Amino acid sequence: MPVSLGELAVRFGCELQGDPDVVVDRVATLQDAAPGAVSFLANPKYRKHLASTRASVVVLEADAAADCAVAALVAANPYATYARIAQHLNPEPAFAGGRHATAVVAEDATVDPSAWVGPHCYVGAGASVGAAAFLGPNTVLLDGAVLGSRSRCVANVTLCAGARIGARCLLHPGVVIGADGFGQAQDRDGYVKVPQLGAVSIGDDVEVGANTTIDRGAIGDTVVENGVKIDNQVQIGHNCRIGEHTVIAGCAGISGSVTVGKRCMIGGMVGVVGHLEICDDVYLTGKAMVSHSITKPGLYSGKLPLDEARRFRRNSARFQKLDELAQRVARLERDGRRAAAKDDDTAAPDDRAANERP
Amino acid sequence: MPVSLGELAVRFGCELQGDPDVVVDRVATLQDAAPGAVSFLANPKYRKHLASTRASVVVLEADAAADCAVAALVAANPYATYARIAQHLNPEPAFAGGRHATAVVAEDATVDPSAWVGPHCYVGAGASVGAAAFLGPNTVLLDGAVLGSRSRCVANVTLCAGARIGARCLLHPGVVIGADGFGQAQDRDGYVKVPQLGAVSIGDDVEVGANTTIDRGAIGDTVVENGVKIDNQVQIGHNCRIGEHTVIAGCAGISGSVTVGKRCMIGGMVGVVGHLEICDDVYLTGKAMVSHSITKPGLYSGKLPLDEARRFRRNSARFQKLDELAQRVARLERDGRRAAAKDDDTAAPDDRAANERP
Amino acid sequence: MPVSLGELAVRFGCELQGDPDVVVDRVATLQDAAPGAVSFLANPKYRKHLASTRASVVVLEADAAADCAVAALVAANPYATYARIAQHLNPEPAFAGGRHATAVVAEDATVDPSAWVGPHCYVGAGASVGAAAFLGPNTVLLDGAVLGSRSRCVANVTLCAGARIGARCLLHPGVVIGADGFGQAQDRDGYVKVPQLGAVSIGDDVEVGANTTIDRGAIGDTVVENGVKIDNQVQIGHNCRIGEHTVIAGCAGISGSVTVGKRCMIGGMVGVVGHLEICDDVYLTGKAMVSHSITKPGLYSGKLPLDEARRFRRNSARFQKLDELAQRVARLERDGRRAAAKDDDTAAPDDRAANERP
Repeated sequence: MPVSLGELAVRFGCELQGDPDVVVDRVATLQDAAPGAVSFLANPKYRKHLASTRASVVVLEADAAADCAVAALVAANPYATYARIAQHLNPEPAFAGGRHATAVVAEDATVDPSAWVGPHCYVGAGASVGAAAFLGPNTVLLDGAVLGSRSRCVANVTLCAGARIGARCLLHPGVVIGADGFGQAQDRDGYVKVPQLGAVSIGDDVEVGANTTIDRGAIGDTVVENGVKIDNQVQIGHNCRIGEHTVIAGCAGISGSVTVGKRCMIGGMVGVVGHLEICDDVYLTGKAMVSHSITKPGLYSGKLPLDEARRFRRNSARFQKLDELAQRVARLERDGRRAAAKDDDTAAPDDRAANERP
Repeated sequence: MPVSLGELAVRFGCELQGDPDVVVDRVATLQDAAPGAVSFLANPKYRKHLASTRASVVVLEADAAADCAVAALVAANPYATYARIAQHLNPEPAFAGGRHATAVVAEDATVDPSAWVGPHCYVGAGASVGAAAFLGPNTVLLDGAVLGSRSRCVANVTLCAGARIGARCLLHPGVVIGADGFGQAQDRDGYVKVPQLGAVSIGDDVEVGANTTIDRGAIGDTVVENGVKIDNQVQIGHNCRIGEHTVIAGCAGISGSVTVGKRCMIGGMVGVVGHLEICDDVYLTGKAMVSHSITKPGLYSGKLPLDEARRFRRNSARFQKLDELAQRVARLERDGRRAAAKDDDTAAPDDRAANERP
Repeated sequence: MPVSLGELAVRFGCELQGDPDVVVDRVATLQDAAPGAVSFLANPKYRKHLASTRASVVVLEADAAADCAVAALVAANPYATYARIAQHLNPEPAFAGGRHATAVVAEDATVDPSAWVGPHCYVGAGASVGAAAFLGPNTVLLDGAVLGSRSRCVANVTLCAGARIGARCLLHPGVVIGADGFGQAQDRDGYVKVPQLGAVSIGDDVEVGANTTIDRGAIGDTVVENGVKIDNQVQIGHNCRIGEHTVIAGCAGISGSVTVGKRCMIGGMVGVVGHLEICDDVYLTGKAMVSHSITKPGLYSGKLPLDEARRFRRNSARFQKLDELAQRVARLERDGRRAAAKDDDTAAPDDRAANERP
């Protein structure tokens, strides 16, 4: 889909430095670009490539424009502007509404005529598929599941009974929304299953990565608010609420009944213990474990960095006696104070000693 | 499915405080309940809601009954009793035996007439599906797989060749039982695959969460005993044995050839190194890594708590020199003893005495 | 598939100690073997079973042969030789080319006549399936995906649009290759999706474990080189490159734009932060987090070992004040030096000199 730089400047509100009639039709990195490509500079580390790039135009911030050997689209937020341009150049493939001959759709399911139900899909009783929604191959909507308008299940997605997905969501393969939460009541002879009777409610504009799982609530619903972006292989337990515009990186795991605020950034492999609250605007670096509620916005960490194995082993052996070590230090300090005091008795009138003398 | 409080009391062995003719038909939390609902108190933190709940009845322990504004069902284990009542009020939907027109069942597979094989399911050669078992949409049983009676594959479950599942199990979407274990023999030019010739054997009353994977054994079988409950996205390697009534929380990973005892509780994201044994009644808190066998029941941990990022960074930089720090402390102690000894040379015969001097 | 010891010795280049006419037809562990079975000794821990094994023959190293009560196949690398023998005794089941009646194959897809497309599979427009490739039930190849010759999708595998898999690969159930990378550009009102326009390119002889996900590149491709072996539930982000003959254990997560060298071993649950480089021949022990590039081959660790919970809690509380503790130790050292200097005032001019005194 070729478009001129002039049109890009107008459409995406950029200042153009260069010839408005040059046409681009694809995106590329600064290093690999050839004429016809749009590139971008969002990370200062790549600024050195501005001088040599062969892109037709680079989306960048005002203060980098001078270094740019080619045309520039100056934007306040070059990465977001690049994203919008890339979307514009690569629209989602259009599709006609209808259903594949192999799809199985329950009689009382509601499928909008503009939606597509793909090969080997299943849409259960009372389920609902909105306008221009897309069900890729082997997608399953169990009874009563709802997929909002313009939402897209790429392939092999499972929406369990009653799971509700809003509009313009994107669900990648292997996603499971609404499996039972992990509710087991301990009893004398093992465990009794606690029926998971709530549902999952997902807002609009939510993206859910491949093989991510979001469990249904035990009594009430698990809720994912608008604009939440979730990476692959994330696990979200029952009764959680994830605040709008929060992003969750791959392999993070959030136990049941956790409330996560708005605009949080949860790093990869972060774990959150159950029944906690994390306030708005909390950033958690990778692999941290949240074991208490967080009430103050900010950046939190909890993972030791890597080290050469032998040294790490020595240090972690010391860690296992860290409490003892701290007590030994306290003893040395006490001894030092005592010695100083004794010294003072015979020699120097130091304040401390002075204060402590009767 | 409405039921009277009197019937609940009799059926579940509770003492009823209140009118036996009141009828309930659903469950609710203490805060959200309306008349007609059963609620429960299992966590003391919610006791404050007993005075204001609008539930028709609350399942609780004897010593909480006095605080309860409405009828009470007094039980020794309110959570397990609640679970049973919730099951009773919400029975699994009944289904007729048979197979969907789109299901593919091998000629020599054995499917009990009371079992249901759903849309787009595949049941391979020599596979077997027991009485009243349920195969939700897109479930795959490869050759020789066995699903026991009354067991339920919700949707999109894969049982690989020869995997055997007992009775009354519940397998959630995306579960893969019996994929090859990770056996790779290193050789001059990369790796040679070690054929994974064992199977997986899962007992009765086992629940397996969404997208969990349990690998087949290399030579013998991987075994999951009766009553084990496994959450989502758990990975269990080849040749493991998981003892009965053990529970494993989400995203835990157990390497190959690990034996886990009975009644263990394995926290979320826990990792277990291969070829270890964990005895009965071991509790592992979230994100711990088990790198040695555990021979003593008890509670074990291994994950640093979260901290404000700057402070965490300072502390973890110190950790990387912890061995050195400990040596410095030892040196200070030595110097202190020497100094004391020198002191004593002129005064007292040994360190001990020196320390004890007034 | 029975075979004589003599034939095994010739075919796999071993020295046979024993009767070449004895026939074996299966593998077994040393402890469980019965006559007719091949066993092996690769781990010295099991050497004690050599004296009592009932196997017909044991594959082992030269220096263990003397202890072996039965026939021996002496090999330089017994585990790799065992793996090859086990493959020979247990060949993959043969299959005829063709497609199941329920498979859906786009008109312009290219499927080699010797390939099998199983029940409920989908092969999209422009996709390509090589000679003797195998698509197990419910496997999905979206538009333009390529599966190389002799590669095998066990069941329920998803190759997203344009994903390319080489020859002789093995993809286990639930694998998702080529889902969108996690590209989200932050903007005033939430996030803008960054289109993921690259593909995934996987080499030859790669194995990918159940429910593992490998994302497509943002602009260029995500690349997995020849001979890489990946366990279950591993996550590999967009634009990564994994060097040949690297192995990645279960539940590891590699963020976007990471380059991993050749012949690395990445332990279970290891996490790698984005945009890093790990050189060749790096070994990472389980649960480590890589937060800086690694430029030196070797063994690296980063996870504290498990401890009894109460002791761990005390030690980790101390960790949260480790920086302060280190400062206290530095103060004690300073005080000690000062005290020594004062001492020396009466005898020698400075610490150094003091130490140098005869």
